[in-house]
Amino acid sequence: MSGDKFVHPVNVTWADCDPARIAYTARLPYFALDAINAWWEAHLDGDGWFQMEIDRNVGTPFVNMSMDFRSPVTPRHKLLCETYPTRLGDKSITFAVKGRQNGVLCFEGRFTCVFIIADQFKSQSAPAEFRAVIEPRLRAE
Amino acid sequence: MSGDKFVHPVNVTWADCDPARIAYTARLPYFALDAINAWWEAHLDGDGWFQMEIDRNVGTPFVNMSMDFRSPVTPRHKLLCETYPTRLGDKSITFAVKGRQNGVLCFEGRFTCVFIIADQFKSQSAPAEFRAVIEPRLRAE
Amino acid sequence: MSGDKFVHPVNVTWADCDPARIAYTARLPYFALDAINAWWEAHLDGDGWFQMEIDRNVGTPFVNMSMDFRSPVTPRHKLLCETYPTRLGDKSITFAVKGRQNGVLCFEGRFTCVFIIADQFKSQSAPAEFRAVIEPRLRAE
Amino acid sequence: MSGDKFVHPVNVTWADCDPARIAYTARLPYFALDAINAWWEAHLDGDGWFQMEIDRNVGTPFVNMSMDFRSPVTPRHKLLCETYPTRLGDKSITFAVKGRQNGVLCFEGRFTCVFIIADQFKSQSAPAEFRAVIEPRLRAE
Repeated sequence: MSGDKFVHPVNVTWADCDPARIAYTARLPYFALDAINAWWEAHLDGDGWFQMEIDRNVGTPFVNMSMDFRSPVTPRHKLLCETYPTRLGDKSITFAVKGRQNGVLCFEGRFTCVFIIADQFKSQSAPAEFRAVIEPRLRAE
Repeated sequence: MSGDKFVHPVNVTWADCDPARIAYTARLPYFALDAINAWWEAHLDGDGWFQMEIDRNVGTPFVNMSMDFRSPVTPRHKLLCETYPTRLGDKSITFAVKGRQNGVLCFEGRFTCVFIIADQFKSQSAPAEFRAVIEPRLRAE
Repeated sequence: MSGDKFVHPVNVTWADCDPARIAYTARLPYFALDAINAWWEAHLDGDGWFQMEIDRNVGTPFVNMSMDFRSPVTPRHKLLCETYPTRLGDKSITFAVKGRQNGVLCFEGRFTCVFIIADQFKSQSAPAEFRAVIEPRLRAE
Repeated sequence: MSGDKFVHPVNVTWADCDPARIAYTARLPYFALDAINAWWEAHLDGDGWFQMEIDRNVGTPFVNMSMDFRSPVTPRHKLLCETYPTRLGDKSITFAVKGRQNGVLCFEGRFTCVFIIADQFKSQSAPAEFRAVIEPRLRAE
């Protein structure tokens, strides 16, 4: 459903840029993770990782990230991070994040997290209320 | 040659940790990139990316990064980032970074960069003085 | 004029917090500087520090910052950074930034910058088009 | 006693620099706080803020910071942060941090923290084992 297409906007600034006048490479995983956190906030009643951990006792630590950098990110345009789940396992979830500026794909990444009981740092199955918001939004990468 | 094993130490602190009391995931690519920059400094007469860009007009932007997160990184121990080139193409280089704390592998990653003429942002072959320091240090991943 | 009250909102997240579960102190100057950059963007045709430096050849390096931290910043509420110039000298400008969450003052700071010709890193008087947007917005601290 | 002069070295790199090719202003409070954390590590049996909070239940949140920026910080030289306590109150401590590169003073700052019982976020007097390491190292600013 196109109305479900989630895009997280980032205002890239001077603070993000390196002497080559583009966003420093290590900022790009930050932006992608911000987008994933925002995806949770948008679909889980405003709760991002902070509230998930503290109020719901659910953690989702990352086990893998893989990113391709296609084109430099600059402060000239908003960075629009399209974000969606691509796979939901019993105990894990994979997100795709595609960052675009002015219609150009700047980076794309795949990020896999596992569900844990936060205060025990112990693996768990994805809680039902999480599955309920994830499953209808799964898309092929 | 074991004397060539390059390890970049990181003092992980409070500043790097999130509310789960471990280093925030997006800090780990930062640490890995710091280790790669330090590898250049150690093998290129003290020159890291800053001096490469400004004094040598050579840039090495990243085209891909892939990281597996094996175990949480904490301030309890130094983070030792073993760093070495695994592949040198005509115009690209791939590094492996393995981050360990107290003998435990915390993360491992693979990072590919391309060589460019910095002030033109244009692809170039790896300069000879770069090849000279890279080739003898290439190792299988 | 109340319509001129400029407030920069920050979405504080897990990524900003330390193990005490509040935003890490050194993130607060970042937020304040983001707010000042956003003030420029809002009043200078969308241009922040990046465009000022590259398109207008005007830099505004900081010479002083002073911040009082009144109450912890958390991800529970938007951080609203009220930002305004308090003093315009011939070659310098001072900003006040007051960060509030849920009606509570979390921090307040004073930041002084000087105007420079960017590519010469040389002091200059505030350019006329800058004075024009600053002067009507000056307020007592 | 000159042997007690504590200097925290920072390897400033590409990652810290902005498009003006100097360390971004908001990185400088980070460096200063890293230096203060390192001061604690050096004088408190290796314990920085992380161990103080978790192992000792002592927090030292900042209530004020004030910094003067004298000269740009670049990757050309190590940044040497001389750090020492200047005032110890019953419940507070003030540190001075002076950052120098190649003999030039780049910034100087004053930072005041209060002692709290960490898990209660409640003010407390400086614990005796803290006073013991602070008092002999107090110097006029």
